[in-house]
Amino acid sequence: MDVVVQPGVNWVTLNKEIQSSGLFLPLDPSPTAFIGGMVSTNCSGTNAFRYGTMKDWVVSLTVVLADGRIIKTRRRPRKNSAGYNLTSLFVGAEGTLGIVTEATVKLAVAPADTSVAVVSFGTIEEAARAATGLIRSGVPLGALEFLDEVQMEVINRHGSEAVRKTAWDESPTLFLKFAGTTDGIKGDVARVKEIVQPFKPRKVFFARNKQEEADLWAARKEALWTMTSIKPEGYSLWSTDVAVPISRLAEIITLSKQDSGKLGLFASVIGHVGDGNFHQAVMYDPKNEEQRASVAKCVHDMMGRALEMEGTVSGEHAIGIGKKDCLVDELGVDAIDFMRTLKQAVDPKWIMNPGKVFDLPSNSKAVAAS
Amino acid sequence: MDVVVQPGVNWVTLNKEIQSSGLFLPLDPSPTAFIGGMVSTNCSGTNAFRYGTMKDWVVSLTVVLADGRIIKTRRRPRKNSAGYNLTSLFVGAEGTLGIVTEATVKLAVAPADTSVAVVSFGTIEEAARAATGLIRSGVPLGALEFLDEVQMEVINRHGSEAVRKTAWDESPTLFLKFAGTTDGIKGDVARVKEIVQPFKPRKVFFARNKQEEADLWAARKEALWTMTSIKPEGYSLWSTDVAVPISRLAEIITLSKQDSGKLGLFASVIGHVGDGNFHQAVMYDPKNEEQRASVAKCVHDMMGRALEMEGTVSGEHAIGIGKKDCLVDELGVDAIDFMRTLKQAVDPKWIMNPGKVFDLPSNSKAVAAS
Repeated sequence: MDVVVQPGVNWVTLNKEIQSSGLFLPLDPSPTAFIGGMVSTNCSGTNAFRYGTMKDWVVSLTVVLADGRIIKTRRRPRKNSAGYNLTSLFVGAEGTLGIVTEATVKLAVAPADTSVAVVSFGTIEEAARAATGLIRSGVPLGALEFLDEVQMEVINRHGSEAVRKTAWDESPTLFLKFAGTTDGIKGDVARVKEIVQPFKPRKVFFARNKQEEADLWAARKEALWTMTSIKPEGYSLWSTDVAVPISRLAEIITLSKQDSGKLGLFASVIGHVGDGNFHQAVMYDPKNEEQRASVAKCVHDMMGRALEMEGTVSGEHAIGIGKKDCLVDELGVDAIDFMRTLKQAVDPKWIMNPGKVFDLPSNSKAVAAS
Repeated sequence: MDVVVQPGVNWVTLNKEIQSSGLFLPLDPSPTAFIGGMVSTNCSGTNAFRYGTMKDWVVSLTVVLADGRIIKTRRRPRKNSAGYNLTSLFVGAEGTLGIVTEATVKLAVAPADTSVAVVSFGTIEEAARAATGLIRSGVPLGALEFLDEVQMEVINRHGSEAVRKTAWDESPTLFLKFAGTTDGIKGDVARVKEIVQPFKPRKVFFARNKQEEADLWAARKEALWTMTSIKPEGYSLWSTDVAVPISRLAEIITLSKQDSGKLGLFASVIGHVGDGNFHQAVMYDPKNEEQRASVAKCVHDMMGRALEMEGTVSGEHAIGIGKKDCLVDELGVDAIDFMRTLKQAVDPKWIMNPGKVFDLPSNSKAVAAS
């Protein structure tokens, strides 16, 4: 129930390759993602609500260190408490501590059956409260996703033929995946219907067969490309994510949409609400400096808002270059300094993906020699 | 769906305190365990098969560092990929990197219903193959535990009155916990009956009511204290665990029992088979040096056997002092050296729980100054 893979393997290819085993790697990032990037960003996606994030699935990593030595972080058992958890240190470290050359990942048993439901609401508040009710109910959903009214309109107009078969309600909408036995799902569907009822759902679709299931979920999966397909020539898409405690989700989505609404640009929200995590995407003309600056401010304010709500500036895309300043705001100078001390100790010349997560020391050679 | 706790809180007390919320911290180590120790050893227990280990439930830690600075490893969201995963670095580090003074832990929704089944088999091989069948089936069991024939005999003779109501078969036995909705459990029970059938179960108990459920599971929970209750005055119990890939579990339990059987001492096996993890306990007279040495060799050989099978010398009890040598065998000098480099960088005077996980540098002051 594990598999050894190299970092250049695409996860969709991997899951196709092992399909006959009845097992799968239950992450669901962009279909273009590779194992190496998934490890380095601690990726997730729509399945995280049920299965957790990449860190929960990596058993061990083979890593080339800055001094050329090669280590394997752990052996093969699924459960392990032998020494420091180096596996989880390298997962999400964005390549700054070493180069991952191989990963052993756990696999999950594919559910016997699955299904899909889509429920729209009058307001974001009602959608979020319904989502909270679902989370607290303990119904073992496979995924719990949110698309705002802007995104639903895009899907109605620009989705694939299969997706446009459905007359989507252009309002805040939850996408639910069920996973379990056929009988178990029947029970889960009945409970979900009860739980969402008090929040006055506007339109409710429960897939009645495999075709409907595929068509309904396709709307969620096409969200990103329908957006990119309507992006005007030369425009950029600024897509970023934050995560907050689930109790604050409705509030931050509402405030962030009010703010981005003032930009006069296309702006939509897609959320992994089951995890308190959402993405905002804004289209802008990168050649228009004023426009670019106003989008940057809008994004920056959203980060600040997440931090005020005890949230994080990155739920699933790591820090990279763009969020380095925010990381200091999030964790404080001492925590960052602790991270830098670790980095400095194992990579004194700062040769591993330099400049990611935090800046190089102002005079890195001097620091390395000190 | 999270709670902030101090390290001196007992997890049983915590779960009682928050019971009315319908939420719980789903770890199940010894009932005497405290949050601080659970964090520092990356504890688990019978629930790990369903819920994972402590590392999967800690959202953030407040830690006092060796230089007196205080950091918080993360903020409150359940999902986070902002900066290095310091939380998982401190979990399982046995206090060697800093002193944990506060933890924010995620909580799980308590299942609507639970049930228990106990199934005995003719051989360890059959029990293990049935267990593998259950794991691969994807039935969402709450726990999957193993007790050997020695342990079952102890329970028959020395269990509490409630436990002795059942006439236990003194043979290799699986203890299963079900968790879900009442209807869902009915389906799971039916599937389990089918799955174990080919492995010729000798005795099968499926709890028919809450009393039977409690009585059946009590046998598993009493395993440790029934053993200590029969320990002769002045004797010690050497209890230790290893974990291997699930496919090797039957083999290592069989070999280890053959080996410990030659000691002429009480020796039993309790396993978290769902995780490929098991404990062997041997009673010996610590004043008898020859006896102590033969038990030590038996334990050491079990570690070696686990490593030969790509396993770990510690599934859930960490390294401490007793397994330091084995850790080098498990991970190699370079991986240990990497851990020591991290330790040295953040605790140059080696003041944090010195001597645990790995030895102090032979001249620690000299190293600290270099």
